[in-house]
Amino acid sequence: MRQAGRALPEYRALREGTGMLDSCFRPDMVTEITLQPLRRFGVDAAIFFSDIVVPLKAIGVDLDIVPGVGPVVAEPFRTRADLDRLVPLEGAPEITQAVQQLVSELGATPLIGFAGAPFTLASYLVEGGPSKDQRRTKALMYGDPVLWDGLMTRLADLTLAFLRVQVDAGASAVQLFDSWVGALPAQDYRRYVMAHSARILTGVRDVPRIHFGVGTGELLHDMGAAGADVVGVDFRVPLDEAVRRVGPGKAVQGNLDPTLVFAPEAVVRTMTERVLAQAKTAEGHIFNLGHGVLPETDPDVLTRVVAHVHEATSA
Amino acid sequence: MRQAGRALPEYRALREGTGMLDSCFRPDMVTEITLQPLRRFGVDAAIFFSDIVVPLKAIGVDLDIVPGVGPVVAEPFRTRADLDRLVPLEGAPEITQAVQQLVSELGATPLIGFAGAPFTLASYLVEGGPSKDQRRTKALMYGDPVLWDGLMTRLADLTLAFLRVQVDAGASAVQLFDSWVGALPAQDYRRYVMAHSARILTGVRDVPRIHFGVGTGELLHDMGAAGADVVGVDFRVPLDEAVRRVGPGKAVQGNLDPTLVFAPEAVVRTMTERVLAQAKTAEGHIFNLGHGVLPETDPDVLTRVVAHVHEATSA
Repeated sequence: MRQAGRALPEYRALREGTGMLDSCFRPDMVTEITLQPLRRFGVDAAIFFSDIVVPLKAIGVDLDIVPGVGPVVAEPFRTRADLDRLVPLEGAPEITQAVQQLVSELGATPLIGFAGAPFTLASYLVEGGPSKDQRRTKALMYGDPVLWDGLMTRLADLTLAFLRVQVDAGASAVQLFDSWVGALPAQDYRRYVMAHSARILTGVRDVPRIHFGVGTGELLHDMGAAGADVVGVDFRVPLDEAVRRVGPGKAVQGNLDPTLVFAPEAVVRTMTERVLAQAKTAEGHIFNLGHGVLPETDPDVLTRVVAHVHEATSA
Repeated sequence: MRQAGRALPEYRALREGTGMLDSCFRPDMVTEITLQPLRRFGVDAAIFFSDIVVPLKAIGVDLDIVPGVGPVVAEPFRTRADLDRLVPLEGAPEITQAVQQLVSELGATPLIGFAGAPFTLASYLVEGGPSKDQRRTKALMYGDPVLWDGLMTRLADLTLAFLRVQVDAGASAVQLFDSWVGALPAQDYRRYVMAHSARILTGVRDVPRIHFGVGTGELLHDMGAAGADVVGVDFRVPLDEAVRRVGPGKAVQGNLDPTLVFAPEAVVRTMTERVLAQAKTAEGHIFNLGHGVLPETDPDVLTRVVAHVHEATSA
């Protein structure tokens, strides 16, 4: 469950007075925040607490996460000269330390490493912040494919290095998260994005690799083919259909609609059952929400969902 | 091209000092605004200037369109008692007058009538305004299907009455626009939405019926089956694939990505060609953008797109 912390009072208390990006570079805080949802919900794995823009921050890009807005980049990336600002990541000691601490605390429970995928990173860099339509990103991608390729190549290097730090420090799996790639038709995903994401996924093939985006119903096959072992599915595509799209030899993850936590308890149960039923044909299915946890979520509802899934799948 | 006005200086000049909803109830203004994109772009049909919430306003629901926000409903709809606020629409003289004026001005050029579909209307009423995730709408829909059905029934009555006003006054076709329905999986669209949209589409079967939503790749078949003659397709699904999903006997409309107007001219041309190529198998294809016109669009780019399409399709 991504972004589960936002719904937890213990998370809000711990983060009080510390900026989002600062908290991602404090090993003790990362450790504690990563463990909180595990204690609260009893899930089967921990997902490393971080943010999509952390590796950019780690190499010195001037950006911040503004509450209520999202990542804001001081000087957006738009020209060839901007490529020089994307220097190689030479280790990330705070991340290494946090992962090592976590692995030691977690024992047999797996830790899933986390990174944003190049298209989504490019989107923040080119737009200068969140965008509803990725218009500048697309204008650059379609309009200057050579510059685009240079940008994506450097971002793939960065992302791979960031994931390698986590895997080398002991993470058991990784999740590559491409928030905005659902803005592309499959044909353009294959031409402008897929090879870069594939290079990252290949570079961490020593662990299971999960790949996810929102609104990516049209891309499920290609995101799997990019080298994922598990493809995350949002709540719009039923898991049996997702299995058909992803194809054989891969697992799917998802996909309870996270807004359902605002519906009556019986609805949550029914819809959880529906996801499990649709996953019957899905070998290796990993139950999850079909999107991040919403901040206003009552954590107890999620605790009950986890218990329900455990009960249903252990029977 | 929906929302084309926003990009036109002549539209902004005319709207100066008049609220969005007020302008929708002034026949002379509606007439002029509807004609502006036609004069500017040389498109083959006019789309009636209105707003999704106009029929709600017409029956006295207290709401306004707040610039930069969208529709805001003074008292959101959440209980059975709220249903009584949705009274029947007994004519809409300003709309009738505007359509009649337009039909007379337009001569042989068709006028497409316009209305929002019940799910999207319900979303504004239940949320109280625009929502990223339709959480309250879904909570009501899944949690109280009887109240939901009552709400959708009244909204379908209202929408049908609003479209009948336009058709009876001389509109040559209609577009039923379901902005937010892409938030539902197909299974739930069929259970909670389809019959209501279908009743509206059946009620205007004397004219061609276009049905459109954004992010509705998973719903194309069902939106066609609801009774549309033409299914609008956003830019994520190639038209040849859309034709397969929609099935025989129906046309598709779309789907140039509207953000491409920010890319270099050559990109716009290439992507226009691509849409036309993908539409080769699409009998009765109507070229359009795959989403509304963005406010910052340079109108001249759209003028050139229209000329390009005319040139290519008349050859």
